[in-house]
Amino acid sequence: MGWVQKRRDHGGVIFLDLRDRSGVVQVVLSPDTGGLPFQRANSVRAEFVLAVRGQVRRRPPGTENPQMATGEVEVATSELEILNTARALPFHPGDAAGVDEALRLRYRYLDLRRQESWHIFTMRHRAANIIRDFLSKKGFLEMETPMLTRSTPEGARDYLVPSRVHPGEFFALPQSPQLFKQILMIAGFERYFQFARCFRDEDLRADRQPEFTQLDLEMSFVDEHDIQQLTEELLAALFQELLDVELTLPFPHLTYQEAMGTYGSDRPDLRFGLEMVDVSSILADSKCRVFAGTIKKGGVVKGIRVPGAAGFSRKILDELTSMAVEWGAHGLAWFILEDKGVRSPLVKLMEPEEIDALITKMEGKSGDLLLFVADQRQVAEEVLGKLRLELAGRLDLIDNKKYTFIWITDFPLLEYDENEQRLEAVHHPFTSPLNEDLPLLESQPERVRARAYDIVLNGVELGGGSIRIHRRDLQERIFGVIGLEPQEAQEKFGFFLEALDYGAPPHGGIAFGFDRLLMLMLDLETIRDVIPFPKTQRATCLLTSAPAPVIPKQLRELHIQCLPAKIKQD
Amino acid sequence: MGWVQKRRDHGGVIFLDLRDRSGVVQVVLSPDTGGLPFQRANSVRAEFVLAVRGQVRRRPPGTENPQMATGEVEVATSELEILNTARALPFHPGDAAGVDEALRLRYRYLDLRRQESWHIFTMRHRAANIIRDFLSKKGFLEMETPMLTRSTPEGARDYLVPSRVHPGEFFALPQSPQLFKQILMIAGFERYFQFARCFRDEDLRADRQPEFTQLDLEMSFVDEHDIQQLTEELLAALFQELLDVELTLPFPHLTYQEAMGTYGSDRPDLRFGLEMVDVSSILADSKCRVFAGTIKKGGVVKGIRVPGAAGFSRKILDELTSMAVEWGAHGLAWFILEDKGVRSPLVKLMEPEEIDALITKMEGKSGDLLLFVADQRQVAEEVLGKLRLELAGRLDLIDNKKYTFIWITDFPLLEYDENEQRLEAVHHPFTSPLNEDLPLLESQPERVRARAYDIVLNGVELGGGSIRIHRRDLQERIFGVIGLEPQEAQEKFGFFLEALDYGAPPHGGIAFGFDRLLMLMLDLETIRDVIPFPKTQRATCLLTSAPAPVIPKQLRELHIQCLPAKIKQD
Repeated sequence: MGWVQKRRDHGGVIFLDLRDRSGVVQVVLSPDTGGLPFQRANSVRAEFVLAVRGQVRRRPPGTENPQMATGEVEVATSELEILNTARALPFHPGDAAGVDEALRLRYRYLDLRRQESWHIFTMRHRAANIIRDFLSKKGFLEMETPMLTRSTPEGARDYLVPSRVHPGEFFALPQSPQLFKQILMIAGFERYFQFARCFRDEDLRADRQPEFTQLDLEMSFVDEHDIQQLTEELLAALFQELLDVELTLPFPHLTYQEAMGTYGSDRPDLRFGLEMVDVSSILADSKCRVFAGTIKKGGVVKGIRVPGAAGFSRKILDELTSMAVEWGAHGLAWFILEDKGVRSPLVKLMEPEEIDALITKMEGKSGDLLLFVADQRQVAEEVLGKLRLELAGRLDLIDNKKYTFIWITDFPLLEYDENEQRLEAVHHPFTSPLNEDLPLLESQPERVRARAYDIVLNGVELGGGSIRIHRRDLQERIFGVIGLEPQEAQEKFGFFLEALDYGAPPHGGIAFGFDRLLMLMLDLETIRDVIPFPKTQRATCLLTSAPAPVIPKQLRELHIQCLPAKIKQD
Repeated sequence: MGWVQKRRDHGGVIFLDLRDRSGVVQVVLSPDTGGLPFQRANSVRAEFVLAVRGQVRRRPPGTENPQMATGEVEVATSELEILNTARALPFHPGDAAGVDEALRLRYRYLDLRRQESWHIFTMRHRAANIIRDFLSKKGFLEMETPMLTRSTPEGARDYLVPSRVHPGEFFALPQSPQLFKQILMIAGFERYFQFARCFRDEDLRADRQPEFTQLDLEMSFVDEHDIQQLTEELLAALFQELLDVELTLPFPHLTYQEAMGTYGSDRPDLRFGLEMVDVSSILADSKCRVFAGTIKKGGVVKGIRVPGAAGFSRKILDELTSMAVEWGAHGLAWFILEDKGVRSPLVKLMEPEEIDALITKMEGKSGDLLLFVADQRQVAEEVLGKLRLELAGRLDLIDNKKYTFIWITDFPLLEYDENEQRLEAVHHPFTSPLNEDLPLLESQPERVRARAYDIVLNGVELGGGSIRIHRRDLQERIFGVIGLEPQEAQEKFGFFLEALDYGAPPHGGIAFGFDRLLMLMLDLETIRDVIPFPKTQRATCLLTSAPAPVIPKQLRELHIQCLPAKIKQD
């Protein structure tokens, strides 16, 4: 039984490619087969559903198809039943690749009939099983946490669910099971994991979904090293079993500061070099005012050596400069190193010894291009970080077969939020500060480092975690530093503060974007490919047309009403 | 590392029972241990979290504890660190059993520290793994379906989620993944399963939760027998591996009519007998008017033989009669069979031959009690069904160690809903009718049987499923019969009707209440015991106090406002 993939008529004989999830087989009906089956086969179109009975036989010599797993045989059909018909298709599953994504999402069931979809969701299933097996063997329990929970407006925006039983009150869908997994540690479970559905009502820039699946885990009586080691072993098992790829353990570590200083990003892609070098010390007294002036004002000059890019045209160099400016730099200084000397608009403005020192510091060789940005540290690093990625693309430096993992550690605990005019947790307010930085918490809060770690694969943040605060006094101090009044803290997190009072063990954990991990492992473009029923950037399901209006009775029962529409945005 | 379960001081020596999830060990500190560890141990109270280092040694002869797995050893402690303190506890985890459930739910992390909780959630974890292994080996893919989906107000009440991006529109949380799993079959996946979170905003009578977990599966190209066989093998594997209990396959079958006729229930408990017998044919011309009159008006007389209940006092018989009346019967006729003859208020009103025929039909023996209800068939069967359960309890007929499964089949497809004044689907409107009953669909719709099946364990409905409709024309006919205008059907289910147009295979499935299955397997009283963070009957989480009010900005962003409160119910 299966779907008609293709029908061909050849010399009065009907050939059907019949497909099920296991593959395709050729079904043959000749006019002398007998009336009814042949008649029915004659009415069959693409994606009809058939039940067929017949003799499997070797194909006649010369008609074998070596491209096909079943290319040496065919089914000489004696019975054929049409289980269901199919209308003319908006697109054929086999040709879905080129079709507009909106159309594919509207007819997702046709899109999912592609061979590739079958592969993707088989891999997703197997990946989850491998992870479950690994964690089960390590003594983790998979436990479910509530979807209908409490709104704690920290971080992203919550999806709300009005309560019918409690007028004027709302549940929130979880942004992550953070507090519940910490409560499970306080409850003594020691090792928990979950494939948790998480919800964030954010504007969906980039490749985000309003609901996504997170592999979430937490352990008691551990430090950073334990979590990281477990994570590495987990990923090694997954890559080995799913892709037959052997990862090299342990993964390298960079502190946040090192990552920013060398790659201009807290999720650096280490599949290629182009590291940044700080040349401020050489240029502090440069004749060239752009450099010296910036450094005097507390800024830096940082550069990248681009091997083999001395041949870049003026046009390319202008493009790179425009990009740098667009990203926030004042300009981009370039030096082309050739056998016959150095070319740069700045040669005239600088001492030859200065240029020599610069080239030596950058380890420049003939054929290289040197690029520099002079600016405040953050701007210089971010701009060169983006340039670095741009150059890797242009020079095709990235080996797509490589999986390069790295841990980023020692993130700042807090950052100043200009909009809210207050300090905010970089990760979340339950992250433990580094013990040695505790004395700075009130005096220089932005210098306090967190016991947080992100894991980055090929320049994509795959997951992140931290050692949590397990003592009430410290948790209250952190709430205070981020501007939560004691009463507010009590209202929002009182139950959690109380839980810390009853024997909370030291604990920590990590969470991975499971969709994103699969996307990277399967080398796909978007996480929509690994989700059976994804939503669009406007948070719409094109298949079911959700969200949709509801009947007034439903709203009345929930004690809410819609506000009069202001501006129609659709 | 672990929690202090108990502390005893004995002759200056401190004994601590230190607990982690693996068990308890005795930690000993004598004053000569050295200052700091002993001092610290002195300040320790129940549920403090400690790190301890020391020598594991055999306990002194005579002090062993044979009740304890580690009762022969103890830890002579040289180092002790207090990782966290604990306030005086609202209740001790070890004594939680007798504590008010509201208090236990508020401090759920203490309640979960019970040894039994650890057992329950280990079993839950293992059960899920056994099921996943079994289904994976059978070629099923575990696939995720959306939580933010479309409201289709059929069946229970939806939880709604206002959309921020689409003012005035709402998502609904799924009552089950019904349509998505059918779409996955249309997409060609053939075998799907999921542990799916489901949501129903109902008044929580009995043992229900607003969110619960369903083991949901669906197959293509199958009939009832295939689904039932797979289910039986799955349950057999689960009971074998989790409980070491061997189930006898195949499970017996009863049609809905047989179940109602013999047990007065569509989820009969077959761990005991007390089957109903129809004696209408004997009593049609009875002198006793209650019997004859009822039968003449289209009613029936049905009875139960209760072996060994001839000794029931008049008081008990009066109680049973009151119950029968409360459940809707006009009365309860009883006959006590003794060696010396028959006792009954009705003896005087009936011919001796009639009574003899009755006893013969009921296979009555001396020592039995015969009970009869004369009424319309439905009333008589329901009342005797309830009496049957009541009698089994009173006579202690139920073997709690037994697992008795049964399939109930051939449910009616439709039933008349008095409130809505229209026909409604008994299961859901996607259930296929029996082919042979199709001609009755418009003329005698209530006589049409469904290709639906429930699985019942010990009188509890464990799961249910059906073969689905896979042809658009039939689906539209069913929508018509339940009073959905074509336009309304199009608005609500248009996307699904369209999907049926593009090669939908024959398919069917089943879904189990996973929480309820575990509750029964672990012999627990309520499903709250198998859910880490359950809600109360009023759909409240006592731990987090969800639901809760939110700030006005959150509602404005969602384009809704609360209606003014009418009556405060709390």
